[in-house]
Amino acid sequence: MQSFELLSQKFALHFDQKHFPAEPASLYEPNEYFLRMGGKRVRPVLCLMGNELFDEIKPDAWEMATAIELFHNFTLIHDDIMDKAPLRRGMETIHHKYGLSTAILAGDVMLIAAYELMNNISLLVIRQVQNLFNTTAKEVCEGQQYDMDFEKKESVTFEEYIRMIELKTSVLLGASLKMGAILGGAGQRNQDLIYQFGCKLGLAFQVQDDYLDAFGDPNKFGKQVGGDILSNKKTFLLIHALETATATQKAELKKLGNQNSPDKVDKVLQIYRDSKVDEWALQLKDKFLDEAFTHLEDIAVLSKRKEPLKQLAGYLVQRDH
Amino acid sequence: MQSFELLSQKFALHFDQKHFPAEPASLYEPNEYFLRMGGKRVRPVLCLMGNELFDEIKPDAWEMATAIELFHNFTLIHDDIMDKAPLRRGMETIHHKYGLSTAILAGDVMLIAAYELMNNISLLVIRQVQNLFNTTAKEVCEGQQYDMDFEKKESVTFEEYIRMIELKTSVLLGASLKMGAILGGAGQRNQDLIYQFGCKLGLAFQVQDDYLDAFGDPNKFGKQVGGDILSNKKTFLLIHALETATATQKAELKKLGNQNSPDKVDKVLQIYRDSKVDEWALQLKDKFLDEAFTHLEDIAVLSKRKEPLKQLAGYLVQRDH
Repeated sequence: MQSFELLSQKFALHFDQKHFPAEPASLYEPNEYFLRMGGKRVRPVLCLMGNELFDEIKPDAWEMATAIELFHNFTLIHDDIMDKAPLRRGMETIHHKYGLSTAILAGDVMLIAAYELMNNISLLVIRQVQNLFNTTAKEVCEGQQYDMDFEKKESVTFEEYIRMIELKTSVLLGASLKMGAILGGAGQRNQDLIYQFGCKLGLAFQVQDDYLDAFGDPNKFGKQVGGDILSNKKTFLLIHALETATATQKAELKKLGNQNSPDKVDKVLQIYRDSKVDEWALQLKDKFLDEAFTHLEDIAVLSKRKEPLKQLAGYLVQRDH
Repeated sequence: MQSFELLSQKFALHFDQKHFPAEPASLYEPNEYFLRMGGKRVRPVLCLMGNELFDEIKPDAWEMATAIELFHNFTLIHDDIMDKAPLRRGMETIHHKYGLSTAILAGDVMLIAAYELMNNISLLVIRQVQNLFNTTAKEVCEGQQYDMDFEKKESVTFEEYIRMIELKTSVLLGASLKMGAILGGAGQRNQDLIYQFGCKLGLAFQVQDDYLDAFGDPNKFGKQVGGDILSNKKTFLLIHALETATATQKAELKKLGNQNSPDKVDKVLQIYRDSKVDEWALQLKDKFLDEAFTHLEDIAVLSKRKEPLKQLAGYLVQRDH
């Protein structure tokens, strides 16, 4: 069993190659440029780990892991257009550097390239794996659409927000693990459990992300604290606050959402603290993490084999007790 | 053996269904709307005809035909964005009616839906069919990129233009026929021949399209004559004229390209006639059509079975002698 760090290094080496032909350079160079930006490569490594939980890592798992990373980058390229993001990881996004049309096409061929890799998978499981991949891919698009719809909605319920995060973020984590597990010969029950482990881990990660954006140490977090508040983004914190705060606090939150006063972040944070949204978020994160670990424990393989996944969960989501 | 018209009617009935879930309606309703716009459905019917050339039409061929039509519509949705087209078939395009972000996502899920259908194909040929589909899908994107690149280029050679049209238009016609043929159990040689038949037919069709835009009867053609000339589009006619006309004519063509005088169309048409570009185009179309028919004749099945494909070719491309 290999650690997340070791598998990350191995995957980085495996992935460090040209993924597209040379011509037309105006289409493929942007994609190579985008892939060179790097990233944590969490999803492909989850696929490898899901595979190794049940068997030695097979060549098919490397193909699948690469396909997953290409798919993830396809979503990033198109999301950047929708978010009008000029930068990613400090570098220009494709639509910003090469124009809208090329960014659309570059994303399209990135998705097709993912399918090309998947077409090499053993015929014994190709249909099962592609079925999961296709379902997940559609769900990720649905999640992105809900996210955009929510921006325009006056109010979003906690359940609606959870469902959006599941679709946009969680299912791909769960599916990456499960695709690795299928390729490793896991039975249906173990496949379902590792999928649920990944989904719950994704939810815990998102709660943490929303929490850190408001209450994180800017030096450690690496992002401007309060960014979500400034952009009026709907988050776990805001949605819960609007559902549970007093009428006065709710009115104040709505008022703050419609303006950009210099003390907006401080005022919203104060309401979050007063209504104990910060504590609630940490508890919610731990709840999702506990659920993730319960699913992991239920998987019918030796505990020792699960250690790397436990470490990974701890690396992605820190416990608060 | 069924005629193109009959298979078109059957496919229209088969395709007339909901292709997406109800929710999120903000994502899937635009796609259902787009598919309701209709179209000639040439590509899926080619798949059915390629299938029936070798065998009775099988359920897999219907799945594949539907996947091809979804793929084609995915390219139209994204192309409409790149072309900034407000209308298609007299109806609002998706990006115009629902916004850019939804149009990008709607195209994305349309492509994924095509793969979902293909995942049901017999395991005996799934890899072969998907391999051809993936290669073709990338080529279509490459063709679109070349087309956009050519808009910005000072000069494009005849060979470059042919290659762009092959990628953007021809390969999907050839591949639609070939995927049907593979599902019908055709051997490699017959597969290659029907692919070439489709590709050459595509080239003949494009030459005809470029010709009719300049010299067609506006009452029959249904489009504004001279549209390509007004928008300075590179076409078979313009590229050949620039390669073969006299120095004076070339200078005049370039000058006309940089202006929008009221007699621009008439003046360009006069140069085309003076340099016999119109006759050349009709000969080129017949040459591609002849090549297409030669490939069709070489296919090792009874001549009688080929009749519907011959009729189809005549329906898509009219002979000029």
